Amino acid sequence: MRATFLYGAGDVRVEDAPDPVLRHPTDAIVRVVRSCVCGSDLHPYHSMPASGQGTPMGHEFLGVVEEPGSEVTGLTRGDLVVSPFAYSDNTCEFCREGLHTSCRNGGFWGNGNGDVGGAQAEAVRVPQASGTLVKLPGVGEDSPLLPSLLTLADVYGTGYHAAKQARVNPRTTVTVIGDGAVGLLAVLSAKQLGAERIILMGRHEDRTDLGREFGATDVVAARGDEGIAEVRELTGGDGTHTVLEAVGHMSAYDMAVGVVRPGGVISRVGVPQYEQAPVGFGSLFGHNITSTGGPAPVRAYIDELLPAVLDGAVDPGKVFDLTVDLDQTPDGYRAMDRREALKALIKP
Amino acid sequence: MRATFLYGAGDVRVEDAPDPVLRHPTDAIVRVVRSCVCGSDLHPYHSMPASGQGTPMGHEFLGVVEEPGSEVTGLTRGDLVVSPFAYSDNTCEFCREGLHTSCRNGGFWGNGNGDVGGAQAEAVRVPQASGTLVKLPGVGEDSPLLPSLLTLADVYGTGYHAAKQARVNPRTTVTVIGDGAVGLLAVLSAKQLGAERIILMGRHEDRTDLGREFGATDVVAARGDEGIAEVRELTGGDGTHTVLEAVGHMSAYDMAVGVVRPGGVISRVGVPQYEQAPVGFGSLFGHNITSTGGPAPVRAYIDELLPAVLDGAVDPGKVFDLTVDLDQTPDGYRAMDRREALKALIKP
Repeated sequence: MRATFLYGAGDVRVEDAPDPVLRHPTDAIVRVVRSCVCGSDLHPYHSMPASGQGTPMGHEFLGVVEEPGSEVTGLTRGDLVVSPFAYSDNTCEFCREGLHTSCRNGGFWGNGNGDVGGAQAEAVRVPQASGTLVKLPGVGEDSPLLPSLLTLADVYGTGYHAAKQARVNPRTTVTVIGDGAVGLLAVLSAKQLGAERIILMGRHEDRTDLGREFGATDVVAARGDEGIAEVRELTGGDGTHTVLEAVGHMSAYDMAVGVVRPGGVISRVGVPQYEQAPVGFGSLFGHNITSTGGPAPVRAYIDELLPAVLDGAVDPGKVFDLTVDLDQTPDGYRAMDRREALKALIKP
Repeated sequence: MRATFLYGAGDVRVEDAPDPVLRHPTDAIVRVVRSCVCGSDLHPYHSMPASGQGTPMGHEFLGVVEEPGSEVTGLTRGDLVVSPFAYSDNTCEFCREGLHTSCRNGGFWGNGNGDVGGAQAEAVRVPQASGTLVKLPGVGEDSPLLPSLLTLADVYGTGYHAAKQARVNPRTTVTVIGDGAVGLLAVLSAKQLGAERIILMGRHEDRTDLGREFGATDVVAARGDEGIAEVRELTGGDGTHTVLEAVGHMSAYDMAVGVVRPGGVISRVGVPQYEQAPVGFGSLFGHNITSTGGPAPVRAYIDELLPAVLDGAVDPGKVFDLTVDLDQTPDGYRAMDRREALKALIKP
């Protein structure tokens, strides 16, 4: 089959690779119908040291079950499924608590995780298939809903996680930092949870326009201290009750601290590109700021988010503004890296 | 009057000072009946640079209203009152949300806050007296309940804040880091909120014994990696759902990260002696750890905690194991600094 590998910063290659095979009776082999490039793929795309061995890429996909392992239940050959960006057994105590990204038998696709391949490929081996995959009954391989359904694999569930962890509700004001796919879907999620005031910090007008369509009431294009001042001005000087940080860079953390209201919550879903950050009296502690977030257990949210996608009430798939064939995947990375595309859909 | 000032590390002096006078019609002058030395007073006692000008000390007290300002309502000369360690108007939106430590018209006693004196004194001017002071009807100046009532000014409410912010409940396991007064009262608070498993990390046996009396089910005397390993062993390898950090040093933060369960909460009420700390993928983010806490809005908790103190159901005053006269206040600091006393009560 053809599959995508990263060999170092800027060096994405689509190559021939062995077809995936079952290794455990709980695995399934899935033919990929749609996958995509994630904003988080751009982090290694910027910084990974060159290597002779490629890292398999891709962790978001819709697919068709080709071969379920002998212990896989609830899935049949031919089922169209969506897969969360982390696999999980959906039965351990962490999964039962809705924290599938800390599953005792779980893990992540691609990105160097050894024996599990990436989803920017023609097929993928899915560990813990019964717990991981969610069937999409009635949806065909040519459904116009595919882009929106694909967002359930990561970016929509991740934006929703940010908003849920922050306890967004009709009484909370919200700032979303970042106009990437996760930021925009954090806006949509905050709107769905009832927020009436949603300030989107982003400087790409085509993206922030989509943010307004998803529910943003205000857009702040400025960054740093100037951006902080604008958000404070919009909120009577106090900042917002919740801040959904969907970038992961230190500058975004600093902005989050700058715009959060005393007693408020910073909810981070952008993968932190830093380990240390200010948390002391002058940043979080002095005004009882809560910091929360992490890798989104999107598996926990699919059942909740699916109906509105299926009935067309929401259209999160609008974040895809470029479609490429699998062999053109490097073009998708390049376009996203240059901010020429918001998010690239891949058709194997 | 006599009042306590800190002139530099280790240099506490009780001196003659001008009697406090009303400055605003919302002030009240209160004669101090009991005050005490706080664990947080030990931070400047360790590190404050020498100065020719003393910093007024003390922020916990019971007192008798001597002179209410013309706009003070609800308080009469002669009322016995307890005062939170922060003053607040109890009417602004932050106070109405229960975040009195971020009150728009609030502030802190002593510790360099300029025009407001300290409570380790014979009397103190109380700003925003109507919002700040809570009457203790039926309690006399010689009541045996005074020590327990005094803990409502800070350490009990602070321990309770840690537990409330962490959302301790009967289903959450708890680690409390620190066997000072706040840590021990965090144990009591966790017990009151229904926690069935409370692990106390502390190495002073007389204190951890009191912790057991307050509700700790396990005591871990080891610190650092060894202490972390012991807590993990006690919890099947996973750590506890909540960690109440009542110390404020970086080593306590690191232990909190080490013993918190995936998806869990670290609730900090020890005043951080650091600004930067690990929060990235390898510490908080990777397993969706929430970090919360800050200066406790103890005013918000007094009404809730008072009844059990008045009827003797709890006896948080047991944290006081030394009583000194006002002029002996430096002995109280010294004894606490040497860990010869847990908490020193001051009788002016």
